[in-house]
Amino acid sequence: MDLEGISNISLDINTLLLAYRSGQSVTAIVELIYERIATHEHNPIWITLLPKQQVLQAAAQLEAMRQDMPSLPLFGIPFALKDNIDANGVLTTAACPAFGYMPTEDAMVVEKLLAAGALLIGKTNLDQFATGLVGTRSPYGVCQNPFDDRYISGGSSSGSAVAVSAGLVSFALGTDTAGSGRVPAAFNNIVGLKPSRGLISNRGVVPACRSLDCVSIFALSCNDAELVLAACQGFDHQDIYCRDRPLPANQQALPKSSSQSLSRFRFGVPTQDWLEFFGDREYQQLFTTSISHLEAIGGQQVEIDYQPFYDAAQLLYSGPWVAERLAALASFFEHSADQTLEITSQIILGANKYTAVDVFESIYKLKSHQRSAAAEWQKMDLLLVPTTPTIYQISQVNEEPLQLNTNLGYYTNFVNLLDLCAIAIPSGFRTDHLPFGITLIAPAFNENLLISLGTKYQQQLNLPLGNTSITYHQVSQ
Amino acid sequence: MDLEGISNISLDINTLLLAYRSGQSVTAIVELIYERIATHEHNPIWITLLPKQQVLQAAAQLEAMRQDMPSLPLFGIPFALKDNIDANGVLTTAACPAFGYMPTEDAMVVEKLLAAGALLIGKTNLDQFATGLVGTRSPYGVCQNPFDDRYISGGSSSGSAVAVSAGLVSFALGTDTAGSGRVPAAFNNIVGLKPSRGLISNRGVVPACRSLDCVSIFALSCNDAELVLAACQGFDHQDIYCRDRPLPANQQALPKSSSQSLSRFRFGVPTQDWLEFFGDREYQQLFTTSISHLEAIGGQQVEIDYQPFYDAAQLLYSGPWVAERLAALASFFEHSADQTLEITSQIILGANKYTAVDVFESIYKLKSHQRSAAAEWQKMDLLLVPTTPTIYQISQVNEEPLQLNTNLGYYTNFVNLLDLCAIAIPSGFRTDHLPFGITLIAPAFNENLLISLGTKYQQQLNLPLGNTSITYHQVSQ
Repeated sequence: MDLEGISNISLDINTLLLAYRSGQSVTAIVELIYERIATHEHNPIWITLLPKQQVLQAAAQLEAMRQDMPSLPLFGIPFALKDNIDANGVLTTAACPAFGYMPTEDAMVVEKLLAAGALLIGKTNLDQFATGLVGTRSPYGVCQNPFDDRYISGGSSSGSAVAVSAGLVSFALGTDTAGSGRVPAAFNNIVGLKPSRGLISNRGVVPACRSLDCVSIFALSCNDAELVLAACQGFDHQDIYCRDRPLPANQQALPKSSSQSLSRFRFGVPTQDWLEFFGDREYQQLFTTSISHLEAIGGQQVEIDYQPFYDAAQLLYSGPWVAERLAALASFFEHSADQTLEITSQIILGANKYTAVDVFESIYKLKSHQRSAAAEWQKMDLLLVPTTPTIYQISQVNEEPLQLNTNLGYYTNFVNLLDLCAIAIPSGFRTDHLPFGITLIAPAFNENLLISLGTKYQQQLNLPLGNTSITYHQVSQ
Repeated sequence: MDLEGISNISLDINTLLLAYRSGQSVTAIVELIYERIATHEHNPIWITLLPKQQVLQAAAQLEAMRQDMPSLPLFGIPFALKDNIDANGVLTTAACPAFGYMPTEDAMVVEKLLAAGALLIGKTNLDQFATGLVGTRSPYGVCQNPFDDRYISGGSSSGSAVAVSAGLVSFALGTDTAGSGRVPAAFNNIVGLKPSRGLISNRGVVPACRSLDCVSIFALSCNDAELVLAACQGFDHQDIYCRDRPLPANQQALPKSSSQSLSRFRFGVPTQDWLEFFGDREYQQLFTTSISHLEAIGGQQVEIDYQPFYDAAQLLYSGPWVAERLAALASFFEHSADQTLEITSQIILGANKYTAVDVFESIYKLKSHQRSAAAEWQKMDLLLVPTTPTIYQISQVNEEPLQLNTNLGYYTNFVNLLDLCAIAIPSGFRTDHLPFGITLIAPAFNENLLISLGTKYQQQLNLPLGNTSITYHQVSQ
């Protein structure tokens, strides 16, 4: 098969759908993908890469349905799954071999994606049990940053983010409890959409903190993330935390002005004393520049009190929610704690120090922070933060695995506790070519606002997509 | 002062307001009330009865505001407060003398009632720390049932219910976490409204389980409860659990038909195998009769699966929510556990056996029961249950204090956990003249439906009000 004509093709969804409509075969795209994957063998992106023959068979089945393309919004779109999300007949490990099990059903979100025509390529590496923001905590190897292999990929959805950035798949699913769907997006120069809690079913996903977990979407553009979200969201009565999107009358916060017109909007920014970059002056400068970019697309910067957001973030890291992780894995940890990474079991078994009283007291504190945050949401349509304060080398994280991990969550930890949705967007590069990213945050169920503004932001910056040389304008119409 | 003309006056709000409008003085009503109170001295209804002179002063102040009567919906209406609700300058004890403190502010709910013209008479007895459904757990004495002093008054809001039933006040506030605002209503032949969680501010109320606690209203009629609710509800940004009433578009459950027209409605009843009366055949028969009464006012009985309601009730009594009680009193229990009743500290310190993991696992179970219950709410507009399965003598409760208390909560425990509102309504008498009551239950924020149907129900039955000989029709217009 001649792949020369498409060897540099961008895997963004629009480009692929146009190619398919012009007669390009799904099979050829699969061949291309496996060639690209072969060039990344040194990087432990995958826990289970599906055999090419199996994917070619799935591609052939799609080819046979070509006439149904108009009703298959993700026809032939290759994707990867973080290995804590079930795919029927493919081992789920959560990056812990002893925990591995063979699912006999697709996760609900996977069922929906496959029904939309998407093409599964494999299951990706992660920080064990999705516990971490670094991408270094896996017995399957440390994911390297595609921009500089001395640097971390970010985690816990490490492999999923790298696979999208490297152009191996069009999109990938991650999960995001404390930032696992945003931190690796920033470090890989891609988009990471963390939808509202309960918008995507968690049925068939290994729980981290069940009350907070969200399936997240990595893609090259906000547009692509929107297409994927549309295909995989929806109420699932079998997932106790799934929620219906509320009717507009009761939608939180957003003033009519912003939803009616995106030409003017108010964005909150933490004041200087709350901004933390751990000495990374380039990230600090890039963040300042991002404020100008948002203003250039119609944003008005407003001053808000960041205290409740900070307080909620502290509550996640130094509070009893870690007991949800132990609750999810209690029987496994009872007999197999020694089969987990030391740092992972240290963190998860730390749950044992919390009492029932601790949980209720923390819930009261959280309620109070939510109340304070609600007042801030009266002043802004969205909150702008750096996705991370800085980026670290793998060797640095190995030396200080807990503290540096905590540092990375400075701007992400509060989002699920405060019932917000968020989108991480690329926002430039340091002089050493490592990417910097921002996150736009809004009250739950305002994904559409974030995606619309994110799209404008990407149009404005016109950066290369992921770790490729193709820019946003070269593929967007 | 000549009280002869009014000595038998009903204290229902309508009657009193008419009397005031006809020129009756508030002072005369206060004199009458203190005469009535004197005849109940054997019954430990009050923890703090306000000095008559103090109330007469307040009455005089109201008299001076007579021209403002139209804007004071509770002008001169005497009321009592359960002694876990703050009134400025009156000791709050929660029925534990060592815990007592002198509040320097009114609870928000009291502030609102006083602003509406209501007249505080005193603070009432309760099961210590609102922990119990019996009314026997107080160092201030055991509240006796006004219909037969060998029987319990019910609790924990014992004194408040007896004060209304005996015609000492027009209404009284209780609190209701597991049934404390409904069980004593049933045993005293009065109405007990337990509004939706967060509809009335809990600021200035001693917490029991903060995530579940509701201020409740005892009154002679549903109409009166409605007037009181209207005066004291409202969002309070300083109470983390206070909630705004949702806009109609998102109101839970209730189909348009029932809110538009009350002439037809569907009520669920637990099937026979779920009904429990602990051998009380008269209560069983009275409950069967109540079904006919509801049908007579337009109700259509529907069969529902009671399992999720039962399961949620079990979760409250045998789950970690008791840790909220300890969280609320942790510092007091640290140094003064020996100053509490043995049964109270036994229950509250039982919280120490629960871990953080237990809490999250129970929250997941509750979420699951909520999901199952939601399916049942598709079939009915309201749920009908007996308020209690039976009633006990004080001596019986003294012998088996834990088990009989648990029995009394069979039909009440699930209501707050499942985010429902409820109204307890008198529904007839056993041959030994002890009252029986039913409870109508609906999803949160459907108080209006419950009050409207409860009013029809009271009209239909035309029972005596409380422990008086005045019937419903004699006072209602």
